[in-house]
Amino acid sequence: MMTGTPLFQKNSDTHQTMVSMGKATFGGGDIPIIAGPCSVESEDQMTAVAKTLIQIGVPCIRAGIFKPRTSPYKFQGIGHDGLDILQSIREQSDLAIVSEVLSIEHVMLASPYVDCFQVGARNMQNFELLKTLGRQEKPVLLKRGIAATLEEFLMAAEYILLEGNSQVILCERGIRSFDPQTRNVLDLGSVALLKELTHLPVIVDPSHATGKRSLVGPVSKAAIAVGADGLIIEAHPEPEKSISDADQAISLLTLQGLHRELIPIATAVGRTLPTLEEVAVPC
Amino acid sequence: MMTGTPLFQKNSDTHQTMVSMGKATFGGGDIPIIAGPCSVESEDQMTAVAKTLIQIGVPCIRAGIFKPRTSPYKFQGIGHDGLDILQSIREQSDLAIVSEVLSIEHVMLASPYVDCFQVGARNMQNFELLKTLGRQEKPVLLKRGIAATLEEFLMAAEYILLEGNSQVILCERGIRSFDPQTRNVLDLGSVALLKELTHLPVIVDPSHATGKRSLVGPVSKAAIAVGADGLIIEAHPEPEKSISDADQAISLLTLQGLHRELIPIATAVGRTLPTLEEVAVPC
Amino acid sequence: MMTGTPLFQKNSDTHQTMVSMGKATFGGGDIPIIAGPCSVESEDQMTAVAKTLIQIGVPCIRAGIFKPRTSPYKFQGIGHDGLDILQSIREQSDLAIVSEVLSIEHVMLASPYVDCFQVGARNMQNFELLKTLGRQEKPVLLKRGIAATLEEFLMAAEYILLEGNSQVILCERGIRSFDPQTRNVLDLGSVALLKELTHLPVIVDPSHATGKRSLVGPVSKAAIAVGADGLIIEAHPEPEKSISDADQAISLLTLQGLHRELIPIATAVGRTLPTLEEVAVPC
Amino acid sequence: MMTGTPLFQKNSDTHQTMVSMGKATFGGGDIPIIAGPCSVESEDQMTAVAKTLIQIGVPCIRAGIFKPRTSPYKFQGIGHDGLDILQSIREQSDLAIVSEVLSIEHVMLASPYVDCFQVGARNMQNFELLKTLGRQEKPVLLKRGIAATLEEFLMAAEYILLEGNSQVILCERGIRSFDPQTRNVLDLGSVALLKELTHLPVIVDPSHATGKRSLVGPVSKAAIAVGADGLIIEAHPEPEKSISDADQAISLLTLQGLHRELIPIATAVGRTLPTLEEVAVPC
Repeated sequence: MMTGTPLFQKNSDTHQTMVSMGKATFGGGDIPIIAGPCSVESEDQMTAVAKTLIQIGVPCIRAGIFKPRTSPYKFQGIGHDGLDILQSIREQSDLAIVSEVLSIEHVMLASPYVDCFQVGARNMQNFELLKTLGRQEKPVLLKRGIAATLEEFLMAAEYILLEGNSQVILCERGIRSFDPQTRNVLDLGSVALLKELTHLPVIVDPSHATGKRSLVGPVSKAAIAVGADGLIIEAHPEPEKSISDADQAISLLTLQGLHRELIPIATAVGRTLPTLEEVAVPC
Repeated sequence: MMTGTPLFQKNSDTHQTMVSMGKATFGGGDIPIIAGPCSVESEDQMTAVAKTLIQIGVPCIRAGIFKPRTSPYKFQGIGHDGLDILQSIREQSDLAIVSEVLSIEHVMLASPYVDCFQVGARNMQNFELLKTLGRQEKPVLLKRGIAATLEEFLMAAEYILLEGNSQVILCERGIRSFDPQTRNVLDLGSVALLKELTHLPVIVDPSHATGKRSLVGPVSKAAIAVGADGLIIEAHPEPEKSISDADQAISLLTLQGLHRELIPIATAVGRTLPTLEEVAVPC
Repeated sequence: MMTGTPLFQKNSDTHQTMVSMGKATFGGGDIPIIAGPCSVESEDQMTAVAKTLIQIGVPCIRAGIFKPRTSPYKFQGIGHDGLDILQSIREQSDLAIVSEVLSIEHVMLASPYVDCFQVGARNMQNFELLKTLGRQEKPVLLKRGIAATLEEFLMAAEYILLEGNSQVILCERGIRSFDPQTRNVLDLGSVALLKELTHLPVIVDPSHATGKRSLVGPVSKAAIAVGADGLIIEAHPEPEKSISDADQAISLLTLQGLHRELIPIATAVGRTLPTLEEVAVPC
Repeated sequence: MMTGTPLFQKNSDTHQTMVSMGKATFGGGDIPIIAGPCSVESEDQMTAVAKTLIQIGVPCIRAGIFKPRTSPYKFQGIGHDGLDILQSIREQSDLAIVSEVLSIEHVMLASPYVDCFQVGARNMQNFELLKTLGRQEKPVLLKRGIAATLEEFLMAAEYILLEGNSQVILCERGIRSFDPQTRNVLDLGSVALLKELTHLPVIVDPSHATGKRSLVGPVSKAAIAVGADGLIIEAHPEPEKSISDADQAISLLTLQGLHRELIPIATAVGRTLPTLEEVAVPC
């Protein structure tokens, strides 16, 4: 039973957890970006993405190999074969690898290859998975459920924290609403409120939140302005050829331009975006 | 990849799957009720419930031993100890036992003791769990996610069907909405629409849908009138002492009265409620 | 300022207001139906509808002449010309005429021709309109706003009651939600809750709530089972030719069949549907 | 009937309407702020607000005299008496006065005293009011309905445009959602999408959108970053004494600080906030 305050709770204005992976630190002055394709499709694709991310100054790569899909008939991710590709990216770069896990078995399989486990919106209250992740020694990126209240979101994080893993990053990714024009509604007011309620870093996914390529830029700027500690953006070498989520992925070139536009916003709120020099490594 | 129509799809007006457990059959002329407490608390509690269900003519008992709770500090269910209690109920009665599983491990543990696996709203898109259940030889009661569209709900069922288990019962249990006055909004229009779209039986949970004891009766009647194939109702020997969900559980006496009031509604839509004689067994 | 309880509040189990129009009384043992087309299109159309309603035993006709439409380019209703048609229906029958008003000017214009003013969902919080209606001596059918909480709904009724008009009928017509498969989500749990909270009659609009012709029957049954005091159903001599809302209007023949099926549901909850003998008049 | 494209539609990247009131222009490089109390309470209050706005460089004052309130027992605004106060503010300053109207009668009454008519969320589809405003020669600030889709919002603007008034400003003010922690959910993705769909200026109300004083600053920054053409902020000389909406009003001192913090965000997106010199006038 609960004694005293929950572990997620912010106890003072300066109470802030920092979560590090590779060269990125979430929760401090930096606002790291995680970028990459919805799904790992091939080693060539991932190498192309990795090279550009390093050039831009993006320190983390997202690389989904187990994909939760509404329909069992849709592409379910490359699966186990993807693990070798992740290994190859690791050997070639210092990029931190973020990858989604859907089950306890996935956690065990992916653990040697990833720097951060992602829990998707559909599994936000998969409590057995959360408890298993609470016993790992790697960061967990926990996405808000599609209709989760902030209390439910924070309590889901608490399941991880309570098992001993304090490296939890919260991610707002849009909530379900009534207007078919946007895939979801990005709830940036909640990002501001989460920053008051918890010491955990809070990042934003502008891609799933809007489902529209052209909106990714403006809402990324808004996310930084509201106080987000990072972004996770879908980017693909050839967005229109993306096997999944093609409508919302931006090209690597667009990502590069967006990164440049985000720098002054970060500056305007007294923070910094990691740039080339800081993350560049031979690839 | 998908070839032809999905397995859940109703192909003609008379295309209807029947799912049986114990003495109950869902999807035919009968409208069986599943009743019982939110959580198994003790053997005495469950024996009291079982005796009354048999007297009333309720053929299935719900008995949660693994409880998914928003907060990790709340009662998480009696867990493994509950398996012996389920065993005892089985030995004493012909009641079919419905119990929720949250993980693949739970499926294995509970399998010898239950007649039907329940998947809760939070796990509706826990696809690894669904696939595991698709390989079992027992019925699965799949609850609609709190903000799941009908397409997502049916596609979640498809994950089970596709693995070979055709015994799936769908359960509408209320969707999340904006009014704090009711816990959820029971979406009975969707029950009617599901009956058009799929041959799978569709039942209704009036307890979680409303979260208010006094509303369970009226919406149960509405559920039968709209065409539901069954009900799953929270009932407790002493509702106000229920460890979880106390506000919505009805007493066994209230359940008995409600059962009596539901009979003419079932008759009015050309169906029947199983009664005493049909399910009575020594307890 | 408020002193004591609001006027809408139910003060005891037997506290129930009855609202009468023509031969119909809402709030008593009878469950009257209001039926008719979305829009008045011509005198022939309305005469055809009126004749059938009388044959079936439906005591009230809906007849929209001022139509609130999302787009200014869509049919806005026949307008002032429709007043003569309403007059003609009045001279030919005892049907009570229910018609929507969108402004104070409409109230003045329509007053001599209608038996009940309807306020649509979009105007539920058009407080100046509500106050004007509170000073009329005819019943007001107040529809729930598309995202109105029950408190907002009841407080909107209070604006009418407070001006002295106690003849208010509340109408649940579906709330906005996330699934594009149904136009709205019919919230029957709220109907049951409203019956606890207020002494005002509560009716249901199964047509707007579902937006699908085939669902009107099942949800009408559910509405009666849950305790609704009446129904308002879109019916048209040739539904597929309806100028507005063609997808949800049922034919007069379907209405006749549905009426017959609703009788046993009403009986099952201890109430009655007005039948032929009670409302028949020469036409 | 509609011929060709709707009037609200943006026909090219550079197609942008500018709407001016007093010294403010919405839709150009400037991002004007409208600030002031929820309700006009007294002349002293308004004079205090006006003085500070001028000092800060805020060119428009909001001043509600007719207040739409959920409950008829709550403060309904100072009403006609407020017109003299508006007149006094006009005589003392160059501030543009924005005031809400709830009915056609209010439009006529307020017209000589205001520079911009505000239509609140509850009246977004009060089409008779919109048509009347379409025949005025002053700007209209149209707020998005609490559950309005963008199509409905834009079509509501079309009702005004079609009558000949092209000076329409759209205002996103939060939509209704499921989490009781924030009053509404600010939908900034829709602001970005509206900027693609329409040439009309789009502003944001961070006060109603969040309902929490502490969130007004962060979401104001986000609104400017996402591309909003202005802000409307509740500010009060003594927020905790505000008769209405006390939880969300910020103090004039906080407004001054916020204004300073918004300047670099505006600069970062290539725009400007009007400052002291530009709007200062003797008061």
